[in-house]
Amino acid sequence: MEKSALQIARAAYKPKLPKALLGPVAAREGKPTQSVGDQDEIKKLFPNTYGMPVIEFEAGEPQTYAPFNVGIILSGGQAPGGHNVISGLFDGVKSLNPANKLYGFILGPGGLVDHNYMEITPELMDEYRNTGGFDIIGSGRTKLEEEDQFEKGIQILRQLGIKALVIIGGDDSNTNACVLAEYYAAKKYGVQVIGCPKTIDGDLKNEQIETSFGFDTACKTYSELIGNIQRDCNSARKYWHFIKLMGRSASHIALECALQCQPNICLVSEEVEAKAMSLDDVVTYIAQAVANRAAEGNNYGTVLIPEGLIEFVPAIKKLIAELNDILATPEAQNLGRSEQIDFVKAHLAKDNLAVFNSLPTSVARQLALDRDPHGNVQVSLIETEKLLSQMVAAKLDQWKKEGKYVGKFGTQHHFFGYEGRCAAPSNYDADYCYSLGYNASRLIANGKTGYMSVIKNTTAPATDWVAGGVPITMMMNMEKRNGKMKPVIRKALVELDGAPFKYFASKRAEWAKQTAYVYPGPIQYWGPSEVCDQTTKTLQLEHK
Amino acid sequence: MEKSALQIARAAYKPKLPKALLGPVAAREGKPTQSVGDQDEIKKLFPNTYGMPVIEFEAGEPQTYAPFNVGIILSGGQAPGGHNVISGLFDGVKSLNPANKLYGFILGPGGLVDHNYMEITPELMDEYRNTGGFDIIGSGRTKLEEEDQFEKGIQILRQLGIKALVIIGGDDSNTNACVLAEYYAAKKYGVQVIGCPKTIDGDLKNEQIETSFGFDTACKTYSELIGNIQRDCNSARKYWHFIKLMGRSASHIALECALQCQPNICLVSEEVEAKAMSLDDVVTYIAQAVANRAAEGNNYGTVLIPEGLIEFVPAIKKLIAELNDILATPEAQNLGRSEQIDFVKAHLAKDNLAVFNSLPTSVARQLALDRDPHGNVQVSLIETEKLLSQMVAAKLDQWKKEGKYVGKFGTQHHFFGYEGRCAAPSNYDADYCYSLGYNASRLIANGKTGYMSVIKNTTAPATDWVAGGVPITMMMNMEKRNGKMKPVIRKALVELDGAPFKYFASKRAEWAKQTAYVYPGPIQYWGPSEVCDQTTKTLQLEHK
Repeated sequence: MEKSALQIARAAYKPKLPKALLGPVAAREGKPTQSVGDQDEIKKLFPNTYGMPVIEFEAGEPQTYAPFNVGIILSGGQAPGGHNVISGLFDGVKSLNPANKLYGFILGPGGLVDHNYMEITPELMDEYRNTGGFDIIGSGRTKLEEEDQFEKGIQILRQLGIKALVIIGGDDSNTNACVLAEYYAAKKYGVQVIGCPKTIDGDLKNEQIETSFGFDTACKTYSELIGNIQRDCNSARKYWHFIKLMGRSASHIALECALQCQPNICLVSEEVEAKAMSLDDVVTYIAQAVANRAAEGNNYGTVLIPEGLIEFVPAIKKLIAELNDILATPEAQNLGRSEQIDFVKAHLAKDNLAVFNSLPTSVARQLALDRDPHGNVQVSLIETEKLLSQMVAAKLDQWKKEGKYVGKFGTQHHFFGYEGRCAAPSNYDADYCYSLGYNASRLIANGKTGYMSVIKNTTAPATDWVAGGVPITMMMNMEKRNGKMKPVIRKALVELDGAPFKYFASKRAEWAKQTAYVYPGPIQYWGPSEVCDQTTKTLQLEHK
Repeated sequence: MEKSALQIARAAYKPKLPKALLGPVAAREGKPTQSVGDQDEIKKLFPNTYGMPVIEFEAGEPQTYAPFNVGIILSGGQAPGGHNVISGLFDGVKSLNPANKLYGFILGPGGLVDHNYMEITPELMDEYRNTGGFDIIGSGRTKLEEEDQFEKGIQILRQLGIKALVIIGGDDSNTNACVLAEYYAAKKYGVQVIGCPKTIDGDLKNEQIETSFGFDTACKTYSELIGNIQRDCNSARKYWHFIKLMGRSASHIALECALQCQPNICLVSEEVEAKAMSLDDVVTYIAQAVANRAAEGNNYGTVLIPEGLIEFVPAIKKLIAELNDILATPEAQNLGRSEQIDFVKAHLAKDNLAVFNSLPTSVARQLALDRDPHGNVQVSLIETEKLLSQMVAAKLDQWKKEGKYVGKFGTQHHFFGYEGRCAAPSNYDADYCYSLGYNASRLIANGKTGYMSVIKNTTAPATDWVAGGVPITMMMNMEKRNGKMKPVIRKALVELDGAPFKYFASKRAEWAKQTAYVYPGPIQYWGPSEVCDQTTKTLQLEHK
């Protein structure tokens, strides 16, 4: 593997650990816990893993451990720091007994079911320390949900002498980790399961989990790019840049980037839904900001748009639902592409038809014609950044005719997602992930299962971070998924009464009017601590 | 101005200077020079500024200078380091006499004509040291070509007591700087004009100019992103990423990024033109690489595409020319949009019609319907990255039916341009630009006009860089522009027998087949020198 100069130099970085993990640990246990909702149902579904206490590690007495092996799985989309969770786990497991082995299951949970694995040797591990990506063992999206999968898994776990399995994933994968932990506990198979909170989207967080790993690095990478675009925008003074940011369900990424870069406009899906805004409301909001700036001679600006926005607009959600129904009829399926649009228009309810007709032709075509293999509208293909800029342009044209707007409206479009999911982890994510992995080894040594590895107080210096574990059932409630009620970890959307949103809301009128851009620049791994070691603004505001 | 932690810390960076510029200088003059082509015509057009010697600065005796003022103009697209040219010039001018003043003309050459200017004070200057962007005074695209403009310019230059004007721009702007220098010399107006070589495209370089500023930082920023995408690509193993990179005329950026990141495929426009490749040839080349990787189970990869590619495909160039003619007819202009496509098809020559019909519908529509205000096809709007991936998909479908290809072909698309033009300059660009600006003050002090500020030997440590000046006429030849022969600086395209392309060509078969990705990571401003101070691979290979 040919390496860049940065890769080589960065490999030597020694991630910091909380002081409690620097030597032997003792587990201080809290009181029995309850799930965040639907306690009776969750308790019934998880009789062996419900109600366990929160754990905090503190300095303890040295112990000796008989050799044991551990397995690790990367589940779902990439997030910066995944390799450091593995190196932390690797070092932690070896520190307990150098004879211990760590096995990686290849290409995600499917590797466990298909018995596709590799040993993570010291040489292999050293190739991946402090690097981005999940390529050491690969990731995958197979869902571990069926008993049949669990039984296939136990075969290979026994064969490899694996005492505990660590699953790195988002809310769904951690839910499934808990189901697996419960199953193995119920069957008395003697295999522990530990989860780790991953996702750049930042929507796996709650009272117990401060942040999911990767959010820090991904947001800093996107903010670097947004800052660069803003500097360009403020130099050329001729374009409005519409910038879409990854994150289907929650707007944490867009909000964090707004806090870092101070763009003219940032949309927050959760607010659009809460206020039941129509698409026209959103367009009018942007157009008004454009018109206000134009009135002062500033025909340029930046707009941040969360990827999932369109699904949070109630009217569009309704339109999509009806489109799915109409196009699923056998009559529609037998039509050619060009006839389908007329068919759709003839069958849509009046209010949905009005929304459909208000969309730019290209987007309407996409909604009506581009389906996934299940026949559903492919919302992720909709170029929301272009949809909005086209509609804003149309609105401004109308205002121009009415004498309400004088200016030029040139646009550029961007979408950032893949650019940040595999960036080399920032110091924060490098330390946080390494600690999560190292900490998981201590949860294993303490015989825990159904726990998530948790590191808290992360706005303090790393030495003061608090390491421990939280029973996964504690974060669960019952939600409808594919028509059935299921126990799941509650997804954390942007809270409109939370500190980060409130700060943003208090500033956005000023940012819209003035050019208050901040340019964060690229992630720095060396240099002054205030440059290299700052956390996200979201965390800073939440911890204030 | 609210600043990020990086902005604040980076402001303290002291750019390095060549040792010849650290104290008083003496100008060592070479022999009289000739233009690179059309010597008789160029000599006739530039009687006062033709044939001047190349200059190298060396240590000299201290001198005293009567106070004088200097003007500066930023011309054209942004490039990282523009503010450092200004700070270098500022410090250089003040070092000659602290009473000297530097004036910036606002929003480009238009500021000179319209007498729109500001003094660059020490306080203002300190706000912009080592930052990206051109926002200190703004840039613009007004071309300084007419006597009327020159005369308006001299009024304000005299009014402000400006002895010399420094113009920071690309090949066209430096050509115009030379025309202005000649005009003021002919008129004996006593105002000198000095140029500085700027453009991220990297196409302003020759025997005398090693590289244009901004190319280093822009390519490193794009390479960071490409590397991140490649790490994702190699982790998820399910997409081919088609990545378009800024650069209309030359493929230097794409080539440099390929040298840094080792993608599976990089197209080079100059090669496509030299080999007279058809669009189908290009598509087949990519599809074959996709099929070869698929045969080994690797349904993922990366393709770099220079922005200007499509205009270098001879058949497309021909098609566009005929489309422009057909759509310019009064008959065509009276048709509605939907009728225009049929009209175009009815009138295209047979071979152009075949090319037109081979294009995906959306691109054909765009070519036929989207015109600029002059009625021309808007080539820059064509999403070449999507055009190519759609055509590759169609080709693979055909091969699948013929049993020649087995695999999946999922795609993602990216276009990087605005993300890098205003990045904070790398150490290289920070030093190089500061030296260019500081050096310009020495050319001014030595009474030079019609010169470009030049710094050479830049793969050596900065102290060993060679500072001097090159007469702009030396880089000129006659070329047709808008139907008229004009004296211009010859644009530097990628040379197919140059070291960078030859190295790439020797490696690309291996990179296409294997996954040889390199991940450069973000630009670092602190840390090990091999990480922070490396030049572009292009320069390294050219200097080997």
